[in-house]
Amino acid sequence: MSRLTLALDAMGGDRAPYPAVKGALHAVETLGIRVILVGAEPKIRQELEELRVRGDLSERGISIEHTDTVIGMGDAPSAVLRAKKDASVAVCARLVKDKRASGFVSAGNTGAAMAASVGFLGRMEGVHRPAIAAYLPRMDGGFSILLDVGANVDSPPEWLQQFAIFGEEYAKFLFGVDRPKIGLLSTGEEKGKGNETTKAAYELLEAMPIQFIGNVEGRDLFNGRADVIVCDGFVGNIALKVSESLAETMLKLIKKGLTKNPVRRIGALLSRGAFREILKVADYSEYGGCPLLGVNGVAIIGHGRSNAKAFANALRVARRYVEEDVVGKTAARIMAIQAAQIPR
Amino acid sequence: MSRLTLALDAMGGDRAPYPAVKGALHAVETLGIRVILVGAEPKIRQELEELRVRGDLSERGISIEHTDTVIGMGDAPSAVLRAKKDASVAVCARLVKDKRASGFVSAGNTGAAMAASVGFLGRMEGVHRPAIAAYLPRMDGGFSILLDVGANVDSPPEWLQQFAIFGEEYAKFLFGVDRPKIGLLSTGEEKGKGNETTKAAYELLEAMPIQFIGNVEGRDLFNGRADVIVCDGFVGNIALKVSESLAETMLKLIKKGLTKNPVRRIGALLSRGAFREILKVADYSEYGGCPLLGVNGVAIIGHGRSNAKAFANALRVARRYVEEDVVGKTAARIMAIQAAQIPR
Repeated sequence: MSRLTLALDAMGGDRAPYPAVKGALHAVETLGIRVILVGAEPKIRQELEELRVRGDLSERGISIEHTDTVIGMGDAPSAVLRAKKDASVAVCARLVKDKRASGFVSAGNTGAAMAASVGFLGRMEGVHRPAIAAYLPRMDGGFSILLDVGANVDSPPEWLQQFAIFGEEYAKFLFGVDRPKIGLLSTGEEKGKGNETTKAAYELLEAMPIQFIGNVEGRDLFNGRADVIVCDGFVGNIALKVSESLAETMLKLIKKGLTKNPVRRIGALLSRGAFREILKVADYSEYGGCPLLGVNGVAIIGHGRSNAKAFANALRVARRYVEEDVVGKTAARIMAIQAAQIPR
Repeated sequence: MSRLTLALDAMGGDRAPYPAVKGALHAVETLGIRVILVGAEPKIRQELEELRVRGDLSERGISIEHTDTVIGMGDAPSAVLRAKKDASVAVCARLVKDKRASGFVSAGNTGAAMAASVGFLGRMEGVHRPAIAAYLPRMDGGFSILLDVGANVDSPPEWLQQFAIFGEEYAKFLFGVDRPKIGLLSTGEEKGKGNETTKAAYELLEAMPIQFIGNVEGRDLFNGRADVIVCDGFVGNIALKVSESLAETMLKLIKKGLTKNPVRRIGALLSRGAFREILKVADYSEYGGCPLLGVNGVAIIGHGRSNAKAFANALRVARRYVEEDVVGKTAARIMAIQAAQIPR
């Protein structure tokens, strides 16, 4: 049986390509997959050398696809389709298109990964716009999914309706539940609350064969009321960045407060386990990455600060995402919803 | 010299009217003002009795304006103009309109306070929509102001432009700075980032005689990049509720972690000063309340969970807001901006 092959954008993320290379080595050893490292071959070889990896790479399940072009965080995403069409993330998408890989992972410029995926892999049939999801850690130790968190702004109700399907299929995959609870992010629980878009989206979601629990509010992001929270990418991006920065700010404030005098420092030492637990809740490296949803192929986006563990976890998520055919299942749902709506 | 008189909605907020009555007593003693307590006279008298306040109320600077009607958190805000036009908050607004009070404070239904203010006091000339602001505590101990946080959804760019003026005048009042830094909440720092509304609002703000620092992102809410952050009420409401609930969730998680075993409990005891400092940063009762901006009169909205201290602080803010004529200054700025735009 041939091993599942995944492409990995070695040039994406902080301190590239070191964490990607190290993560790939771990993944090929533990996951029974092959990984194509995409990026500057000399740099990748240098990292491999430093990790004391010698001899036949192929035997280990590693190969290298060389490209010198890199897309930075400041580049326009659409550059991957024109001036930078040989950027590592674009090469990754083409490897998937050409069936040399079953999916790819990148921790680089998310917009560029989306542009490359849409450009080379295309959208699922009937999909208005692909979306990006984010994990929200919950008080009870679980997660919720928020989408869209930045791919689309000014999303009309019909886009939000499709985001709900993306989210539902993704939640089934992630949480192993049959009927995830889907909420619509708005400014009040009642049906009439919100802006024009959410009011119209409410009607669409209500009519769908999903477990729609109605509007949820900003305060419901972390309490588990919904497994999936649907919103426009403008609002989702802001909600996500507010959350990330507030959590960071609070931890900094606590740290500052705890090191102010010797008594507090002793106190902090005795109670440090509690803080480790909190940090673990917020540790992105555990979750690996999030797929681009609505794209016709497997593209998993890691956090820009991904370390080796995060890359290995992203590859693990990608493998399972391929094996469980989440892309095929999502595409079928979208088709079914479209078909059901035609007679109306 | 006659003392400045403020109306206080005694029936608004949790455990009403106790905290309002107690806060009013403190305010008349320390601020040299008179307070009209608006609400159910028997209940108010009972609270006064329990606080051992006897004899001539008027001598203390307190009077009571009786009404039996109360607007609940679940009532439609517009009820204050129809079925519940005798609700305590509506009576407050009319006391201001009739010049029996120079301003009012309420910790009840914010939407109802806005409806009563717009209905009885009106908007400032040329104002499209009044807005509600919120304080954001910053890492450095200061604050930023976020507006609008819920009065208006689907705000066109021209509304956002006026929100910037409201925010600027309010920031001058609060922080005593001449030229507060104004940011526009969006999904990226660059001018072209955001949705259609923020892109158009950027152009308007750029052309105004304010210190416009461009777009700010969700991560900038707590870092002090801007003194005033302008956004649509839908986004502002969500950003604010996300922040409040995340802060609450994190503190609960920490508390849970810190009480898990005896060693941690001792640690927590030694370092408790650090947590007190954090809680103080997030303590709404210190700030009293936020004015309804763009309304033709002084209306200060307190937190629904206001205690006596919060009410006393809200009355203090209201007094200073009246004395510094922030309403008059804001109205003049709006007029000036309108006048400057006519020839364009």
